[in-house]
This record gives sequence, C-alpha cells and structure tokens, in this order.
Amino acid sequence: MQIAIPLFDRFTALDAVGPYQVLSGIPGAEVRFLGPEPGPIRTDNRMLTVLAEGRWEDSPRPDVLVVPGGIGTRALLHDERLLTWVREAHEHSTYTTSVCTGALVLAAAGVLDGVDASTHWMERELLGELGACPLPDRVVERGKVVTAAGVSAGIDMALRLTELLTNADVAQAIQLGIEYDPQPPFDAGSPDKARTEIVDLVRAVVGAREAEALAEIEAEVAAR
Amino acid sequence: MQIAIPLFDRFTALDAVGPYQVLSGIPGAEVRFLGPEPGPIRTDNRMLTVLAEGRWEDSPRPDVLVVPGGIGTRALLHDERLLTWVREAHEHSTYTTSVCTGALVLAAAGVLDGVDASTHWMERELLGELGACPLPDRVVERGKVVTAAGVSAGIDMALRLTELLTNADVAQAIQLGIEYDPQPPFDAGSPDKARTEIVDLVRAVVGAREAEALAEIEAEVAAR
Repeated sequence: MQIAIPLFDRFTALDAVGPYQVLSGIPGAEVRFLGPEPGPIRTDNRMLTVLAEGRWEDSPRPDVLVVPGGIGTRALLHDERLLTWVREAHEHSTYTTSVCTGALVLAAAGVLDGVDASTHWMERELLGELGACPLPDRVVERGKVVTAAGVSAGIDMALRLTELLTNADVAQAIQLGIEYDPQPPFDAGSPDKARTEIVDLVRAVVGAREAEALAEIEAEVAAR
Repeated sequence: MQIAIPLFDRFTALDAVGPYQVLSGIPGAEVRFLGPEPGPIRTDNRMLTVLAEGRWEDSPRPDVLVVPGGIGTRALLHDERLLTWVREAHEHSTYTTSVCTGALVLAAAGVLDGVDASTHWMERELLGELGACPLPDRVVERGKVVTAAGVSAGIDMALRLTELLTNADVAQAIQLGIEYDPQPPFDAGSPDKARTEIVDLVRAVVGAREAEALAEIEAEVAAR
C-alpha cells in the first residue's frame, strides 16, 4: 500500500508526521514524502527541515493521499502543477485525505466542490469560499474523501483511516504502539472549549504570524 | 529560550515532532534539531529523513533538552560522546526531558539514578535496569526532570512544560492553535485499556521489528 504525503515550503510538521506515524505502522504500507523537487523542505516556523525523497509526480497513483496544511498552502491554491497531480491522484486513490489547511489544497483542486469537510477552525470561512461545505467536526468522512481539523487531528484521522484500510484490531494495535492515550493538561483544544480570551489571543498571535508569512510568500512569488 | 532536540539514527519521528510543534509556539523559543553530525537523519522505519542543523555540542547549554526515543536509543546507551553532552546540558538546563525510550538515554547518562520516570510501556523493565524507578504515568515530573510515556505522550508533556516555562494561558493558546482536542476512535492507547489480544499483538509485532532493527544496529556497530 502506497501512501503519499506531499510536502511544500512552510508546511506544518505535525500535520504530516502525525498521520505518518500511524499509517507507517500498517503492515505493508510505504509512506513517501514528496516535494516540488527532491531535497530539503522547511516547515512554517523555519525550525525544522525534512527531506522530500522525490517529486510529487513520482507517486502518480498512491492508494492514499494525505495533504498536510500550513501557511504554505496559500501559495499552492493556484499551483497548477500540484493541483493537477492532486486531481489525478484523487481519481485513482482509495482515500484522498487532508489535515488542517491541507483541505484548502483539496478544495482548490476541485475535490471538495459541494462536499462537507473539516479544516483548522480559523480557516473554515476560506474553505467555504473555495467551494467546500465546512464542518466543525474533528474528522469528516464523505465517501473516499476524509478531512481532519487542525494539526493534531491528523492522528485521530489516521487511526480511523487505518481501520478503514485494514480493521479495528490493526488500528488499535497501532494506537497502543504509539501509546495514544491522550491526557492534555487543559481542555482548551477547540474554540468551543477554550475561554474567549484564549480564542482571541490565538486569533491575534497566529493571525499576525500568518500575515507576516503571507507577505513573505507574496514577495517570493513576485521575485520569481 | 533555546530548546535542543538531539536526533540520532532510527529515532521515532513523533517523539520529536510532537514536542517541537508545541514548544516552537512559545514566544521567543527556538527549537534546534541536532545530530551526531549536521545532515540527514533517518527515522526508525526508514520512511522519513530529517535534517540535523548542527552537532549535539553546538547547543551546549540549552534551556530545555528534549530527548526523543526510538529503537536507535539502544545504540546510544554506551555512546560516551552523547552521554557526556546530555550530562553537561542537564547540569545547566531549566528542564531536562524525554519522550518514550528517550528516558533510556537519560538513564544511561545517570540523570535518572533512583528517580521516578516514565517511558514506553514496553520498556519499563529496561528503564528500571538502567537505574530509574519506572512509573506507568503519562507524564512524570520530578524537579526539573520531566519524562513522558510512549511516542504521542510528548504532546501532553510539552503542553505541561509550556505551562511551567510560561503560564497556563500560553499553553492553552498553543493547544488551541494545534487544535489538540483529541478524539481517538478507540480507547486502546494504554496496556491497561487495550484488549489482551491487542497487547499481545503489539508485543509480537513491535518485538519482532525491534529485534530485526537491533540485529542491524549490532552489525553496523561491529562494522565500524
């Protein structure tokens, strides 16, 4: 079973590594990290670099496609090369999936036209503007399209995907293998649960960081 | 605030990336991934390669040390170069921490002599043999030493560390930013919760994989 995770400049590491850690445990599964070109790809905060082992097109027909998110997705919404690959991979995939703002890429490729989908809670409106029907659920399954909420939701999605691809025993064995018995010290992981001040704080801080990154992305695109 | 994450051949990706994703969100924090040498480091299942941006010793006095686990830790238990760095970093650190079998490295360095600590549930006995007092808790805090259980437990630990390093509001904002509102599809994430057949399955499958990896590690060490 081939699982393709497309990487791109300024992706969010946990969006990709959470599902990788789960899905790579499926007997016979091969997870491939692919980029615009083979070589180093830096994450959104520039503190981690991952190697893409090949180009996106090197895996033309993966069984499972997992598109991670990150502020870098905004540079991809008009990247016809990536969107063409996503469309063609989706045509033949068993499951086409995304984590966080990876859903924006699926939507830009037309995969989510009129389809219920999840994304990071701050980007639901943008997802709707791209043609999808945003839901606040942690994991949304619609046929072979499975989308997850922000960042850490990819772990939950991947466990469910593992069940769909194999069976509940394999999924539970992988959950136990990665000791996924979450005990967060706070109950502030969704905008419905966090205090209003915390929601406002995240909107302000993340919003400012993203505005800065978007300005850099625009400058990079203009310099090409 | 400098946070050092030492990498090594055959580390487990989520052990490192979970804490990175949380701690990199602390205002002013810089997370550095360091290796035996700068350059590519491959994970335990060989499907992901991360770049170490420098050598372990390039961060001699990090504020926070986060040692990830993975089968590669077994090759480190007598690696005097790494253990010396860990000991010296620990002497000056604000927090010395580990995820999963990263605790074995802390123990081998003498940091856990007679100290309560957590690790992956399958390796508690080995942790005890190395001088620590293994506990089944998800996160164990003893003074400035904080250890987490297997793989995914690093996320919970890092949120608690964030609270200790800053305050509960910052920790909750980061939790909301990564939308960490876990909803695993099964309740099988610890050996106390999973069915006996699942526990046995993991012991057999992971045990076989690790035996194979250990044989390869021994052959590599012998070939040096």
